[in-house]
Amino acid sequence: MSGLFIVLEGPDGSGKSTQIDLLKNYLEKNGQECLITREPGGTRIGEGIRDMLLNPEFMEMSDETEMLLYAASRAQLIHDVIGPALDAGKVVISDRFVYSSMVYQGIARGLGIDTVEAINAPGIGQYRPDCVFFIDIPEEEGIRRKKQQKQLDRLEQESIDFHHLVSEGYRTVLRGREEVIEIDGCQTVDAIQQMIRDAIGKYL
Amino acid sequence: MSGLFIVLEGPDGSGKSTQIDLLKNYLEKNGQECLITREPGGTRIGEGIRDMLLNPEFMEMSDETEMLLYAASRAQLIHDVIGPALDAGKVVISDRFVYSSMVYQGIARGLGIDTVEAINAPGIGQYRPDCVFFIDIPEEEGIRRKKQQKQLDRLEQESIDFHHLVSEGYRTVLRGREEVIEIDGCQTVDAIQQMIRDAIGKYL
Repeated sequence: MSGLFIVLEGPDGSGKSTQIDLLKNYLEKNGQECLITREPGGTRIGEGIRDMLLNPEFMEMSDETEMLLYAASRAQLIHDVIGPALDAGKVVISDRFVYSSMVYQGIARGLGIDTVEAINAPGIGQYRPDCVFFIDIPEEEGIRRKKQQKQLDRLEQESIDFHHLVSEGYRTVLRGREEVIEIDGCQTVDAIQQMIRDAIGKYL
Repeated sequence: MSGLFIVLEGPDGSGKSTQIDLLKNYLEKNGQECLITREPGGTRIGEGIRDMLLNPEFMEMSDETEMLLYAASRAQLIHDVIGPALDAGKVVISDRFVYSSMVYQGIARGLGIDTVEAINAPGIGQYRPDCVFFIDIPEEEGIRRKKQQKQLDRLEQESIDFHHLVSEGYRTVLRGREEVIEIDGCQTVDAIQQMIRDAIGKYL
């Protein structure tokens, strides 16, 4: 494994997509081959799983099924896309990774962080992220930004209590991990982007 | 949990479906409410997962994804169907259960029996089978019976080596387990059915 595996994590509305687009442009201008992946989905099989996970009609989905489907989509993404790209020396930037499952299914659904890690370990194998940027925003700010969207998917339709658990859960899961760099998401887009570029400088 | 959970396991062509139909008729004539489930599938979400698992076009599916999708389908089946039926005191007869995953993904795919058990444990919870009938047939006999079918799905299209691993794998996984009763599948249909009825007599 010779590439660089970067993950952006943070609640909905934290600005991950914007930062990923800027980072990709920057890296490509600097001659890096760069690949962006999204979760769930990103492969033919994973998009089928994504459709099931986000389908607002599937309200009967059990918490365990949800956890396993996210892990299945991720395993296929690693097998088809992330693994081969890293093996070929590319930079992979992933919008969410296993940490999101640890927050949503481990904490907010109550299945336990350790359980989620164990379920995901076989699919991830050796392809662990080199650095994870955790963009944190206050809960109210995330809700405010999200309300500007029109259509909400199955997970976005969850209660305020659920979103509160998620917001706190990100801090519980991500803080203190060796590979995680925490960023205050209330700063300007440019300031956040600069912090990300500075942090990955040592890998390039 | 007050019902009775019966599982039939064995390679393709071992006659599980025939035995299940006979057993259901017998139990219902004796006044037992009886439910038959199939894997993968058996729920709205599970049937969607089944379509992906058996789709002959998805030859790129990774072994880990396959393991996780089987576990997801099973988790939903337990949540929607098996759990509620057992809680209501019914008899549940399942055509295959986690043991098939231990054979196919654990042994034949090489992911390990323990890994498959760990992946499936959260979804199964307390709903463990009361008795598992392992109908064993010689490998050549299974192939002979299966060849009479026209259309083969993704897993059935696997190589002879794979099917050999599966055939041996059933013995490795099932023999010696407390809940398992082994039956020689080369006996007559009636003789096998009688053994099953005798064995579950003590639970009814």
